[in-house]
Amino acid sequence: MTKITNNYVLAADIGGTNTRMAVVNENGDIHTLLKKSTYCKEGRDEMISFIVSFAGETIEKSELPIEEICGMGIGFPGPLNAETGTIFNPPNLQGWDSVPLRDILEKELKMPVAIENDANAAALGEWWKGAGSGTGTLFCITLGTGVGGGIILDGKVWHGASSIAGEIGHTTVIRDGIQCTCGNIGCLEAYACSGGILKRVNNALLDEGGNGGLEPLANLKQVDQMIMQGNEIVLNVIRETGVILGIAIANIANLINPEMIVLFGGVTNLGAHLVEPLKEEVKRRAFKKATESLRIELSQLGDNSGTLGAAKNILSKLQN
Amino acid sequence: MTKITNNYVLAADIGGTNTRMAVVNENGDIHTLLKKSTYCKEGRDEMISFIVSFAGETIEKSELPIEEICGMGIGFPGPLNAETGTIFNPPNLQGWDSVPLRDILEKELKMPVAIENDANAAALGEWWKGAGSGTGTLFCITLGTGVGGGIILDGKVWHGASSIAGEIGHTTVIRDGIQCTCGNIGCLEAYACSGGILKRVNNALLDEGGNGGLEPLANLKQVDQMIMQGNEIVLNVIRETGVILGIAIANIANLINPEMIVLFGGVTNLGAHLVEPLKEEVKRRAFKKATESLRIELSQLGDNSGTLGAAKNILSKLQN
Repeated sequence: MTKITNNYVLAADIGGTNTRMAVVNENGDIHTLLKKSTYCKEGRDEMISFIVSFAGETIEKSELPIEEICGMGIGFPGPLNAETGTIFNPPNLQGWDSVPLRDILEKELKMPVAIENDANAAALGEWWKGAGSGTGTLFCITLGTGVGGGIILDGKVWHGASSIAGEIGHTTVIRDGIQCTCGNIGCLEAYACSGGILKRVNNALLDEGGNGGLEPLANLKQVDQMIMQGNEIVLNVIRETGVILGIAIANIANLINPEMIVLFGGVTNLGAHLVEPLKEEVKRRAFKKATESLRIELSQLGDNSGTLGAAKNILSKLQN
Repeated sequence: MTKITNNYVLAADIGGTNTRMAVVNENGDIHTLLKKSTYCKEGRDEMISFIVSFAGETIEKSELPIEEICGMGIGFPGPLNAETGTIFNPPNLQGWDSVPLRDILEKELKMPVAIENDANAAALGEWWKGAGSGTGTLFCITLGTGVGGGIILDGKVWHGASSIAGEIGHTTVIRDGIQCTCGNIGCLEAYACSGGILKRVNNALLDEGGNGGLEPLANLKQVDQMIMQGNEIVLNVIRETGVILGIAIANIANLINPEMIVLFGGVTNLGAHLVEPLKEEVKRRAFKKATESLRIELSQLGDNSGTLGAAKNILSKLQN
């Protein structure tokens, strides 16, 4: 039975490139959804102004009376303290060290605000209304420009002692592996983020003279096309990426033992070429008892995961 | 202020070799402690009889009236369902598949019984009365005949979806690494359990002709003696073991982000030769924000960790 409700919240999934802003009700139905390029080049204050004015615009577009909007949930790119809503030092944004974004926005918007890291928001969204609906415990892995993760334990985001928990992208999968942007070597992200995959595909093609003197591939769509054309060199790199992801996921299965792994982000468009070797490697490496109860699924909400997770986050806080 | 209490529980740490049985009060004070070789060679029924009669003997020895013993907590070696107290299939014990040990013992002993996996019991003990006292979240790693782990999140054991959580010994640290008894390759346990270390030390000595034609080393005490004598070949294997442990712990730091790692078990007697390279590797690989808030400590309770954890487990259940 769907509960009829008039309680709406604003929900924003703020990315370094695009921002999605929605009005969502208690049931997770999206009433209004807008999308804009994130205005962040001029620095922190302009970006905050952008969020505030985009919020106003979205409320206006929804044609709902402002008093029906009970609060705002935000998924924000980078490390933050979800309890206080303070942003630490996002690698892709300048001037954001120790910014009390929640307090600033609560003052500007005159409503309760809750902020969550974007990977955690996506995990919460998939748990609430996506692939993980009905599970208690899931690990959501974001495979895109970077590799991130969010952990839901018994229905709640697990943040850890210093808000770092879930950083599967920076677990070591190959001890003496390739350099990662974080400074470490052999991190999952270095192999499985979109840039890492492209680099490894282009290197493989170069090594084996397999791209017939063409320009290096510039995006994952081109990688997918090469696979469609039956290019074994490219296919092997993608299979290998699946195996490497499988090692990291097997470690999660044995360490955290979740009910579900949700794979999310642009890299998952590589489909079965990536996911089948991944699943095989998890089965090969993790305990049978951990894999028997583990479902590995693709995101069901796609671009809406973070927005719905941000909505659920503020809804939970309002209900407590 | 220490609360004076008359509420006692029986607490047993049952190992494949030895069993410790204690009477413990609500404050974690050990009133009576006995130790015996575990009688398990004749199979399951005899082992259950052994537990029951050892429990009776311990109560008698305590000279407490039976009505002051409110329940019994057990740390048991191997996989089990802590909620139902059912033992799965312990690798080192025969005939134990799907045995409802809690129900059997409650009937025999006529008191409430709570059973926990031995690694989880050790973690709970260290959290309650040991190195982790005062922390909310810790990961306890047992380094002995095997490598196990127990996770305490916000003061409670995290079991996962199928009671597998914490199995750090069977996370992959070296992708194409050495064979592990679990069937997988490159598991932490294959490198860092006592047998794995011995094998690697003996292989290194053999490869480099460094043991001067002596018999292979038979235990970690001899390894320690070789280090004391300044044997660089042995020392390098121990340092390398520390580095490998450091990789696995860095992964925990980034994934689970606990406040504390507690190292426990006979292998930790190798001391700083093992622990210093371990700490360095964790710092090198994990996020600064995760390591700044992370303490890596040796067990404070030693052989009593599991017994006190078993006591805490039944005490918590009785208090709920």
